Amino acid sequence: MKNKIGGYLETNVFSSDKDDSHYIYLVIGMAKECASHTEHGPFSAIIVKDNEIVGSGINHVTKNNDPTAHAEIIAIRDACKNLNTFVLKGCVIYSSAEPCLMCEGAIKWARLDRLVYSATAEDAQRGGFDDLVFKTSSTPHKILNRQEGSKVFDIWNNNNKSIKY
Amino acid sequence: MKNKIGGYLETNVFSSDKDDSHYIYLVIGMAKECASHTEHGPFSAIIVKDNEIVGSGINHVTKNNDPTAHAEIIAIRDACKNLNTFVLKGCVIYSSAEPCLMCEGAIKWARLDRLVYSATAEDAQRGGFDDLVFKTSSTPHKILNRQEGSKVFDIWNNNNKSIKY
Repeated sequence: MKNKIGGYLETNVFSSDKDDSHYIYLVIGMAKECASHTEHGPFSAIIVKDNEIVGSGINHVTKNNDPTAHAEIIAIRDACKNLNTFVLKGCVIYSSAEPCLMCEGAIKWARLDRLVYSATAEDAQRGGFDDLVFKTSSTPHKILNRQEGSKVFDIWNNNNKSIKY
Repeated sequence: MKNKIGGYLETNVFSSDKDDSHYIYLVIGMAKECASHTEHGPFSAIIVKDNEIVGSGINHVTKNNDPTAHAEIIAIRDACKNLNTFVLKGCVIYSSAEPCLMCEGAIKWARLDRLVYSATAEDAQRGGFDDLVFKTSSTPHKILNRQEGSKVFDIWNNNNKSIKY
């Protein structure tokens, strides 16, 4: 999805609250659309670079049987595909709601400059979503054979053709 | 990827350290393979249900230009596709390294029963990966128009055909 937002850009060359308000308006509208249908969860996100929308996403968890298909993840994948990169420096992500733990991590890995969102995790909890719970809960886990697993990174460091990120 | 591990299962009906050691051995081996090539980051994961491998993944970040394509994310998507569900209750995920913030969140959303991993985030840092940094860093962010964004969840709650997850 690549759209110039006609007219609006002329007086807003740099990121500002006015730009941010515009893009947040767009994602809230998309999320409202999703919330009123059954195929998608009530979330949406867009990614903007130099006042151009370079990626977008709506929630596909239940539609695609994919628990990782949050709006932000899909928007990041879309922007990376459109820009042919795995680094979104210089980009801003607008999300209809506060990113969960997973999406917060994805935003960091994508090296996005900034995040603007509207609803909070508390609001999402009112809709039945576990974002808040996950911030303090922990999946039962154990570490096994660390010594051997750690050697993987020695092999990696000795591979001078590896692509660092 | 659906494989019975021939012979081994007969004496290991229930999850045990012996089972866990076996599956960790597999993911470490896969990660070592990845680490010695340029196409993939040095990580791998598998998902096991009832002693059967129901999903697997290796890192595709640089290969696919997708910062979300960590081994665990790909394994979760693969298992969900194979089992035709967005809920992986009853499944265990084995990862060659400690899941990052993003993958930790994905594991929670997928409702995986357990996590077993080998290398730690400290080990991954030795390989140049920012997992540890991300646990304490924060992307610059702001909340905008929360009141309007919050209404999305009222629409969602009033939609009796919505699929909760």
